[in-house]
Order: sequence, then structure tokens, then C-alpha cells
Amino acid sequence: MIIMAKKAKKTTKAKSKRPTKRGNGSTEKKIEGLATSVVEMAHRQQDPAIAIPTRALSNVAFNEKTRHVEMGENKQSRNFFNYGQAKRFMQTMLVASKCKDLIELGKTASIRQIYYLAKHTIKGTKEKTFDDQSESDPIIEDLEVAIDSLREELHVFASNRGNLAGYITLVDAGSTLDCTAMGSAGYAVPSICEPDVIQFKKCDAKFILHVEKDTVWRRFHEDRFWETHKCIISHGGGQPARGMRRLLRRMHEELKLPVFVLLDNDPWGYYIYSVIKHGSINLAYESRRMAIPDAKFIGVSSFDYDRCDMTDDVKIELDANDVKRAKQIANYPWFASKRPWQREIKKMLSNGFKMEVEAMISKDLSYLTEQYVPMKLKDKKQWLD
Amino acid sequence: MIIMAKKAKKTTKAKSKRPTKRGNGSTEKKIEGLATSVVEMAHRQQDPAIAIPTRALSNVAFNEKTRHVEMGENKQSRNFFNYGQAKRFMQTMLVASKCKDLIELGKTASIRQIYYLAKHTIKGTKEKTFDDQSESDPIIEDLEVAIDSLREELHVFASNRGNLAGYITLVDAGSTLDCTAMGSAGYAVPSICEPDVIQFKKCDAKFILHVEKDTVWRRFHEDRFWETHKCIISHGGGQPARGMRRLLRRMHEELKLPVFVLLDNDPWGYYIYSVIKHGSINLAYESRRMAIPDAKFIGVSSFDYDRCDMTDDVKIELDANDVKRAKQIANYPWFASKRPWQREIKKMLSNGFKMEVEAMISKDLSYLTEQYVPMKLKDKKQWLD
Repeated sequence: MIIMAKKAKKTTKAKSKRPTKRGNGSTEKKIEGLATSVVEMAHRQQDPAIAIPTRALSNVAFNEKTRHVEMGENKQSRNFFNYGQAKRFMQTMLVASKCKDLIELGKTASIRQIYYLAKHTIKGTKEKTFDDQSESDPIIEDLEVAIDSLREELHVFASNRGNLAGYITLVDAGSTLDCTAMGSAGYAVPSICEPDVIQFKKCDAKFILHVEKDTVWRRFHEDRFWETHKCIISHGGGQPARGMRRLLRRMHEELKLPVFVLLDNDPWGYYIYSVIKHGSINLAYESRRMAIPDAKFIGVSSFDYDRCDMTDDVKIELDANDVKRAKQIANYPWFASKRPWQREIKKMLSNGFKMEVEAMISKDLSYLTEQYVPMKLKDKKQWLD
Repeated sequence: MIIMAKKAKKTTKAKSKRPTKRGNGSTEKKIEGLATSVVEMAHRQQDPAIAIPTRALSNVAFNEKTRHVEMGENKQSRNFFNYGQAKRFMQTMLVASKCKDLIELGKTASIRQIYYLAKHTIKGTKEKTFDDQSESDPIIEDLEVAIDSLREELHVFASNRGNLAGYITLVDAGSTLDCTAMGSAGYAVPSICEPDVIQFKKCDAKFILHVEKDTVWRRFHEDRFWETHKCIISHGGGQPARGMRRLLRRMHEELKLPVFVLLDNDPWGYYIYSVIKHGSINLAYESRRMAIPDAKFIGVSSFDYDRCDMTDDVKIELDANDVKRAKQIANYPWFASKRPWQREIKKMLSNGFKMEVEAMISKDLSYLTEQYVPMKLKDKKQWLD
């Protein structure tokens, strides 16, 4: 923090050179701009520096208007002539150069592959450019925010996770895929879902139902819920990966599809909803292209135990950590101001137990798909916003 | 173990009633047979009992002829009139009855869903049929071995994991899928890959290359390895799930496709290969339908560091646990007798380091797909069997 204050002046300089205006030129051009600014500083005999927006809770805020978790304006300067920063400066340049190579080649790499591509012994020394992937991962995130490009635009991919099925036909890497006929595991959502990879060709769905786990999803797929309700069903295999979040957002925005979310009645479920809707705190800079502020939470609600007349077979006792997390989540600015969410979380705490989506089938194997969710979709009063 | 010995006589009785002959009737009939035998014992005023083959290391052996890890002949009797066994007897009957329901409905359920379907309070008591999923999971495995049916035949599914791409066209749940055109994440391999779900329609592939991780797979997919080499590429997202293992085995057996396996050069990689090839110790009863004794390990080998002239960027130091696991694996009966495997493991130990598949790209992004694997496929002497 002290460094930040000290370097504020230099930061401004560095900043003025960065071609960061949104949508202003390709990612490749942005990387070139970053390099050019460094070279120019060197030519002017200045200390080469790059400005990196601060990725810390202190620089994250909830924007009431956009309803996104967003990064603030704080920036840190990373300078070449600074003993504590020189290595990270070099690493940033190195990762940027590897990403530029990927873009030029039209190829992509995993974050681990970036690490191996960029790792080498610095000539004439025994020093490695990177000792560990834990050094290169944050550099990739730095680069994302520094040049205001998503990781996917840097041609870096994460693990792919998540599947979908239903009334959408899309083109993925040139192949046209009808998601009503993609087999029993559905369409595998890739890690990179940007418009140059995936285009929407046809969509007859009226909404998207996103569920937490693949085993729940399979219940809906097998019962052909997407057919009965003319929709798309998706899952993220737990907290949805970037690819799934980006695809959900794009379907929501470009195809005007409402998004309904069905998650476990526990703090983790609340948290997943919070990330889908408003963005994550860690990756706040992505919210702008991933958050879905109009997504609705349809269950499982703490009130469903009584509402649906469940037996105590579904109860899982809250532990101390659940209670702590629930209280933290209730205090998130975007939940703190909402009375229905305060009631929901308070009710879970007073219940003293949590419930899984899968527990609903203790009534009947198809209760979830044939009664519970249709009832939830019909009754807007049960939605949590 | 003492119980086992004591009950040996009863076991024999129970066994004679079980309709377990392989391929003899449908799974549904097998469950009915199990129930009938229990009812008949009751009518004869005998103690109702079922015989469950023992799922323990002590009852697992390597069959030199089939080259499978197989279960032995030991069985345990589970009796109704035995204070220590009555609950598990009841649970076994309950799970069997739920599986029969699933088969009749033509539906499937996850192991967690089975737990919720079978859990209830026993009438007139406060006792639950199951307190936890950790009680129902082993009962499902008991049932599998007791009636000699795979879990998939009982209509129980696990999480799906793994993808493939290449020259195969298959029919999955009625949809025809050309795996050369399934998008950037490929065909999502479902949890249940039995012939009633998946049929092979057309196959122009000459072999299968199975890799460990999805990020490695993506490298091969992006570089269109399957096109250049007229093959199928698959990954299991780590240790392959049952669905992927079963599909690999079926493609190997029914389509006569050789299977080549590319894994990290570490004890975990050796172990994954061992499971794909010979079956797992925990689920030895599945080997018969999942193991691929002719699978070949093509890398990464401990000798590749020198052979491929790698730099020390790829080295990851072995820890004490790696060393311990490597020694254990070297002593597996199916590796102990093979000199090339002994050399391979010994070399890793003397190297003192392990290497990941992804590390090979530290030479060049496409080194793995354009040089390393083609070199490995060409030179049979480098294969480990």
C-alpha cells in the first residue's frame, strides 16, 4: 500500500501511455501498446513502468447501477528499476509476449502451459524466470486487468466444465450443434466461449434453468425437462467455471433469455448465486462480461421445508462454518439491502439445517422435475432476486 | 473375518439359490431372483441370508491369463437373524428394490439420489434406514457383486467426466454424433456407456490416444491430432471415471482399436495406467468389463528427459510420498514381473524428479503433438506394456 502511494505519480505516467480504452482495438494491439509504452519510456531514459489495477478486496465495490461487483480505480505501478518489482516486471512482459505468440498462432494454452512456455533459465545466471505456477497465475491476472482483456482474449484457457441441453443450436469451432440431440451428457461447454469460437444460430428456448451439479442436471435431462418447458438446462459442476458463466451471460444478453438458478440450500449455494448474478470478488474485473444481474434464484429456499412438506430425511445439520459463512453472505452489500434475502438466510439459520437439491427426490424420483421446479417457475413470489 | 469363517456354511446355502450365472437373464431378473431366494428361505423357516462376495484386498488377485485384477471366491453371508447384520440385510434389500424401480421406470439415479430415495424412518421407530450416504454407497457395491451386475446395469450413475474427439460416429440416447464435429470441448462421455445407451455407427479411426488431463487433451484437439493421425483422442479428467473406462474398453473390443495411454511421469500416472490396463483393486469385480490388458503406455517415461533432451525446467522433485507410492506400484504383481517397468520406475527414483505431460511443451507449444507423440507411436521399443 505504501508502495502504491509512493508510485502514484509514475503510475499516472505509465497509465497515460496504455491504450486501455474498452473495445478500442484488438487484444494483440493492446499487448503491442503495452510493449511500446515500455520501450518509449526506456528511450526517454525513464524508469520503464506499467500500471496494474489493484486486485484486492480494498479495490472492489458493488456498483448499484450496473449491479456488478466491480474493481475500483486504484492502481499499482510495476517498475523495472525497483529491486522488489524488477522480477515481476520481467515476468509480466514475458507472459504478455507468450500471449501475443498464442494470438498470432491462433492457438490457446492452459495456465499451466503458459507457465511451462515462459519458464527458462535467465542467460548467464542460475535464476529461473518462474519457480512455480503460483508465480505465473497472478501475472496472467495482472495482464488481464492491465490491458483490460479477458483471459480468453489472451488465448489462455481454464479447465472446461459444465454441460447443457435444450432448444439452442450453436456453432462451436465451425461445427453446428443442435443441443436437443447431443447425447446423454449433453453439449460440453468449452473453456473459451467468446464470439469468435461460439455463435448462436437458432434458439427456440424461452428461458435457461441452471443447476449446480451434473447429477441433478442428469435428472432434468433424463426427464426431458427442456422439452416439456421449451428451455435450456445447464450445470456448472459446482461453482460454474468462466466458460459456463460467459456462455450463460451471452445467451442471456444476446438471446434475451431469462436465467433461473437452482442450487443447494446452503451458504455455498447462496455464494454460487451471488457470483452468477453479480460477479466474484476475486475476479471483479470480469463481472462486466460475466455477471447476470437479472438472474433469479428459484430454490432451494429455507422456506421449502415447510412449503413442500418435506420429511426430516432431507435435513443436514449446519456446522459452525456454515453459520459463519451464512452471516458473511448476509452482509454482502448486494444482499444486505434486500429484505427477502435477509429473511431467507435468517430462516436457514433458525432452521439449523441445510438441504440439497437432490434431497427433494426423497419424495419421488421425478418430484423435482415434475412438481417442484414447475411450481417454482409459476409462482414469481417465490423467486429471490 | 471371524464372522466370515463362522458363516461359511450358511453362505453356501444362500449361494445355491442365487441366479448369478453370468449373462444369465436381465439385471431385473437377477434382483427378482435375489428377492425370491430370500422369500423362499423364510417360507422354509430358515434364516434369510444373502451371499456377498468379499470386497477386500485379501480377496483380490491378478489373473495371469486374463491379465485382469479379479475378485476371488470368498463370500460373506449377510443374515436377517443376526444382530450385527440385520440392518445391512435390510439396507441391501431396500437398495435392490429401489434399483428395480429404476429399471422398471427406465430411469437412472446418482448414488446420492439412491441414498435419498431409500432413506426413511422405519415405521413405529425413530430409526432411519440410512443415516448417511457412506452407508448406502457400499451397499450399492455389495449389490453389484452379489447379483453380478455392473452399477450401470442397476441404473445407477456416477458423475460424468471425460471427453473425446476423432473419427468415430456413435449413437448416444438416440442421437447420432459425429465426433469429428462436436465443438471445442468434444463429445462429453456420459456416466453410463452400456450398449443400450451408446452404439457405434461408424469408425474410421486407427487407434485411440488417451491422455490424462483435459488441458492436455485440448492441446491435441486444437492441433487436430486426430485428423493428422486418423485416430480418436480422449481424456478422463484425471483418473478416468467408470463411463470413460467402459467406453474405451468397448471401442477397443468391439472396434478392435489399439489404445495408447499418455500420462504424467509420476506414480499417479503409473497408477492410472495400471487401472486402465488391469482394473482397480477397489472395484476388482468390474475389471472383466472395463480393463484393457492390451493398452500400451507411451509416455511420459523417466528416460524421456535424456531421450528428448529436456531442460531442467521440466523437473519436479519427488517427495517422500512419491517415492513410497512408486515402490508400492513397482511391487504390484502385474508390474513386478516386467523388467521394462522395473527399469522405468527405478529410473524415476534415480532421477529424483517427475515430469508432467504439459512440461514437454516447454520446448515448443506443439512439440507434444507434432514431435513427441508421433515419435513415440512410431517406435514400438519405447512402449511399455
